[in-house]
Amino acid sequence: MLPEPVTKLISAFSRLPGVGPKTASRLTFFLLRSQEKDLSMDLAEALQQLQLGTDTCPVCFNIMMAEREACGICQDPNRETNLLCVVEEPLDVAALERTSAFKGRYHVLHGALSPVEGIGPEDLRIKELLERVGSSEIEEVIIATNPSMEGDATAMYLRQQLARDGLRLTRLARGLPMGGDLEYADQNTLLRALMGRQELD
Amino acid sequence: MLPEPVTKLISAFSRLPGVGPKTASRLTFFLLRSQEKDLSMDLAEALQQLQLGTDTCPVCFNIMMAEREACGICQDPNRETNLLCVVEEPLDVAALERTSAFKGRYHVLHGALSPVEGIGPEDLRIKELLERVGSSEIEEVIIATNPSMEGDATAMYLRQQLARDGLRLTRLARGLPMGGDLEYADQNTLLRALMGRQELD
Repeated sequence: MLPEPVTKLISAFSRLPGVGPKTASRLTFFLLRSQEKDLSMDLAEALQQLQLGTDTCPVCFNIMMAEREACGICQDPNRETNLLCVVEEPLDVAALERTSAFKGRYHVLHGALSPVEGIGPEDLRIKELLERVGSSEIEEVIIATNPSMEGDATAMYLRQQLARDGLRLTRLARGLPMGGDLEYADQNTLLRALMGRQELD
Repeated sequence: MLPEPVTKLISAFSRLPGVGPKTASRLTFFLLRSQEKDLSMDLAEALQQLQLGTDTCPVCFNIMMAEREACGICQDPNRETNLLCVVEEPLDVAALERTSAFKGRYHVLHGALSPVEGIGPEDLRIKELLERVGSSEIEEVIIATNPSMEGDATAMYLRQQLARDGLRLTRLARGLPMGGDLEYADQNTLLRALMGRQELD
C-alpha cells in the first residue's frame, strides 16, 4: 500500500529502542511533509558521520573523533592520572563531566555483566581495564557502574579482579536522589539511604 | 565534551516530533554501539531514499513512488470513480485502506484549516479538490477529516465550497470507539454518540 521508501524508513526507525511501528510511521510522515525535507537529509548525513567520524579511544574506550590518537580527556595533561572512574557507557562519562567535580580519567566498559543476556567479562573492556590499572600509577578506582543488578554484579566482579595492596576501590554513594521524595522512594533506595546515613556536621 | 558527530546527530534527532534531548542522546548512543553500525547506515539510506524515491501523486496528492504518473490507487481501474474520500494526511489513507471497506478514490489535503496556526485554504490542496470534483463524475464526497476542531472547520468549509445539486456530501460517523468504555468516554464523544444513536435492527 505505502511506497517502498516509506515502508523501509518505517521499518528502520522501528529498530530503534523505544520506537514502535506507530511512532516509526509518525516520524516518517513528519519527515515527508515538504517543509521538513532538510531534516531528512540532515539526519541522513549525521547518521553517516556518526559512523565515519567517530571512533573509540584506544585508552579509555570512550567515543572520540576519528583519526585522533586518544580522546580529549585521556590527552588532557591537567587530568589526574592516579584516579580512574569506571563506567558502563560513554553517556555516563558525559553525565559525570557535567558535574565538573571529577578530575581523573575514565574507563568505559561498554556494558555490564549480565548472565541473563549472556554478557560475560570477555564482552566488556575488562581485560583492558586490568592491564591499565596494573601498569600505571593509579591509586583509586571509582567503580561507577549503574545502581542496578547488572551494575552491582559488575562492581563485585571488578573488586575481585582489581584488589591489590595500595589500590583504593570505591563506588558511588546510593541514597535518596536530590529533589526526591522520601514518601515515594522505593524500598531498596530507602534501605540504602539508611545504611549509608552520614553524621550531620 | 562529546565529539561533534555525536552532538550533531543528537540535535538532528531532537528536531523530530516527540523526541527530546534525552531520547535523542539515547538513540544516538544506541547507534554507536558496534553491533548497530548497520542500522545507522540503513537509516541514513532510508532517509535519503524517502526524499529521492517518493513524490506526491498529481491527482490525489497521496505519497507515491517517484517517477510514476499517478499513485497505485488513482491508476487502479477497479476503484470506483464516483466516490471520493477527502483526508488530511497520507497516513489517513493508509488507515482507511486497512479497513478494506472503501473502494473509491482519495484526495489528501495535507493538513486542516487552522486559523491559530495560520493555515488557510490556500495552504491545503483545496483548490485542486474543487477542480477535481467540478470536472468529474463524482457523486459522493466523504469528508474524512479528523474529528477535531480543525478537522470540523475544514469539513464545514468544504461543505460550503463543494455543495452542488446531485453531489452527496458525507462525514465519518462519530461515537464511542470500539472496545472503548462508556465510563471513560469524554463528554463530547458521548454527546456525539447520543446524537448519532441508531435503531437496533
